[in-house]
Amino acid sequence: MSYPISIAEAARQLRSGGLTPRELVERCLEQIHKHEDRLHAWVVVDEEGARQAARRVGDQIAGGKHLGPLHGIPVGIKDIVDVEGFPTRAGSPLTESERKGADAPLVAALGRAGAIILGKTVTCEFACFDPSPTRNPWDPRLERTPGGSSSGSAVAVAMGMCLGAIGTQTGGSLVRPASYCGVAAWKPTFGRVSAEGVVPCSYHLDHPGAIARTAEDLRCMASCLLGVGDGQPAPRPAPPRLGFLTDFFMREADEAIRQVTETAVEKLRDSGAEVERVDLPKGFDDVHRMHRTIMAVEAAAVHRRRFEAHRDGYGPVIAAMLDEGLATSAVDYADALAHQRAFRRSVDALFDAATPPDALVMPATDTSAPGLATTGDSKFQAPWSHAGVPVVSIPSGLATDGMPAAIQLVGRHGDDLALLGVAQWCEQRLDFRELPALLG
Amino acid sequence: MSYPISIAEAARQLRSGGLTPRELVERCLEQIHKHEDRLHAWVVVDEEGARQAARRVGDQIAGGKHLGPLHGIPVGIKDIVDVEGFPTRAGSPLTESERKGADAPLVAALGRAGAIILGKTVTCEFACFDPSPTRNPWDPRLERTPGGSSSGSAVAVAMGMCLGAIGTQTGGSLVRPASYCGVAAWKPTFGRVSAEGVVPCSYHLDHPGAIARTAEDLRCMASCLLGVGDGQPAPRPAPPRLGFLTDFFMREADEAIRQVTETAVEKLRDSGAEVERVDLPKGFDDVHRMHRTIMAVEAAAVHRRRFEAHRDGYGPVIAAMLDEGLATSAVDYADALAHQRAFRRSVDALFDAATPPDALVMPATDTSAPGLATTGDSKFQAPWSHAGVPVVSIPSGLATDGMPAAIQLVGRHGDDLALLGVAQWCEQRLDFRELPALLG
Repeated sequence: MSYPISIAEAARQLRSGGLTPRELVERCLEQIHKHEDRLHAWVVVDEEGARQAARRVGDQIAGGKHLGPLHGIPVGIKDIVDVEGFPTRAGSPLTESERKGADAPLVAALGRAGAIILGKTVTCEFACFDPSPTRNPWDPRLERTPGGSSSGSAVAVAMGMCLGAIGTQTGGSLVRPASYCGVAAWKPTFGRVSAEGVVPCSYHLDHPGAIARTAEDLRCMASCLLGVGDGQPAPRPAPPRLGFLTDFFMREADEAIRQVTETAVEKLRDSGAEVERVDLPKGFDDVHRMHRTIMAVEAAAVHRRRFEAHRDGYGPVIAAMLDEGLATSAVDYADALAHQRAFRRSVDALFDAATPPDALVMPATDTSAPGLATTGDSKFQAPWSHAGVPVVSIPSGLATDGMPAAIQLVGRHGDDLALLGVAQWCEQRLDFRELPALLG
Repeated sequence: MSYPISIAEAARQLRSGGLTPRELVERCLEQIHKHEDRLHAWVVVDEEGARQAARRVGDQIAGGKHLGPLHGIPVGIKDIVDVEGFPTRAGSPLTESERKGADAPLVAALGRAGAIILGKTVTCEFACFDPSPTRNPWDPRLERTPGGSSSGSAVAVAMGMCLGAIGTQTGGSLVRPASYCGVAAWKPTFGRVSAEGVVPCSYHLDHPGAIARTAEDLRCMASCLLGVGDGQPAPRPAPPRLGFLTDFFMREADEAIRQVTETAVEKLRDSGAEVERVDLPKGFDDVHRMHRTIMAVEAAAVHRRRFEAHRDGYGPVIAAMLDEGLATSAVDYADALAHQRAFRRSVDALFDAATPPDALVMPATDTSAPGLATTGDSKFQAPWSHAGVPVVSIPSGLATDGMPAAIQLVGRHGDDLALLGVAQWCEQRLDFRELPALLG
């Protein structure tokens, strides 16, 4: 088998008998054994449990029982999501004895679909900004951030340590690490994937979602997580109409990202996509400030008691944000929530044009992965977390530094599967096939 | 015709030709001419427009066109709701030149159903607490509050100045004035009746709703406002199961309210209702404090700029609340919003019992209408505004002071029409027929 392998291809081989669940699990474990020491993508790997699950799935498939495209697929779960039998550490030394509960509903849904939970992936502290020890496998010197906060999930998928992974996004924590690591991410419409059993950061911004090699794979995961069946995913048949947001995104992107994005968009246009410039939605000027207010305040409300008691147990970047949240007035926070509601409507309005776009398109990040001091800037991702609209990011090419770049596609509120279909159409035309340096 | 008349009875007579729209409008105007000087229920009455509308409706009915139970029914609109052609004053001297816009969607819906907009009713300042000049018509000396903030709507319906009226509730502004004035109120499930075109007080608490003589009449209005057709409303055929909330409500009610409530509940039980004591929902202990925080903060966010510029233009009670909201920290407000979400779930849980109640029942107010210094206490109504669940209040009898008392029925989130059916069953058994002193 050519490796790493996509969920869609693995599902075909598992079903046809060309691949057994046991072989697939062992292949993932092999990658982990080989690279984990240097990459730090995992908090815990449940080798024994995964092998047991693989045997069970193998018996089911041998008996003719097929649960759909996730049946027998090894996945990783970001360690802010509850998985039965494991503590949820949330990347913090303050959580040692906490949250050893039942599966979060989204984990239970993956389990019912036959996915094999391989273990828990590294997250930045409380899914915020302080970098985790995780390294980006595209940089042979391991001096670049994988992005955050879903750092482990992005690296694990990029390295074939698992085929799909759960992450979460409050600012840019799914799209940014996936983009820095050359894989795809899906941030669902707000509220469509349950945040129950997930350590909260910000009630009005937290989005559980997924990272996988391709949009096609994300569509398999989305069908499961949205509870809309496991039908064989299909790309959009006709070329889509894309609204290109250049105003903020192409001006703030660095030269390398701008070039990759222009080349990618040109390729999509040459393949038949209709691409038209679209103005920024109303309220965009304030979006970063308002998003920051909501995130800081709600994180401060969540952490209040623990932060008062154990301030020294927090990293410097999250601590600064919690201080900011604690110092914010209620009326400023109320204004930020009102801005969020209005901004959501103004993004919706872009899709109510006379000839509405099927998706908005723009670069997913302003630069390729920077050094290890930060997890990168969330300014390209945060507006869509604020709006709560669905986002899919897919690799768009390599930047001049050899690191991967990505575009993000933004869809109409609630139309996640249609957006994934558009992303799948686009990824087939962009045909990104590069692999991380550590796999080369 | 016996007068005041219910919407349901007027609709029957209008349809049969026993009553013309013009006669009905003139009867309402007659009541206004006779009593408005002393009661102050109206900001503006559009006599000319109402007569024109009556002629139009009369022609439609003569031509065999029947739009349903609100066709030809004169209604009043609380003066925080936009009605085309009139300014929206919101009970404040600071709004002279503001909001002279199109019909709010809820007003437009009434118009499409053929209701005749008679004018705008008096509201307490910005739908809050400072008493309006409106008087309670049940007290012959006119020394009692009609309640607030939908003061004019409650009095206008009680006096037959109109047959139904729009009000709003953030704390207890529909149920309390209706109860003090011996008429019925419906506070819908949060968000089910659009608050567009309504002067905001609190984003997470504002509920536009209705006041009418009976639950049957409210059901006619609800069908229109919820957009679920105009079918002939029907009471619940079988006796309902009622969950009696005694813990807070019967302890905090004064002796007179307690007696009327016990008698009413006994009567319902004797008529076949199953009545069982139900514990307060989880989180009830904090509900008043949390509700107050949300209301104070969101009102302060709404009024911020105007309050800074025109502090002296505000009444003392609302000004104190705005100061309180401005002084609140964002994390306390975030905690209050989190409490609201959890409390809504814990109220939902009462309806998920093995043998769930069809409605919760309890007194609607802690006392009958007090004097003119306040509009009464919202502590019995605010918990359900906080939870966002539907409430219907109906008169339950007369207190020892001769003033009306009411029970409130609380329903399952989203089940407004079923709750109105339960209320209609109850009101037929309670058979309250008393009239205000000023009508006697």
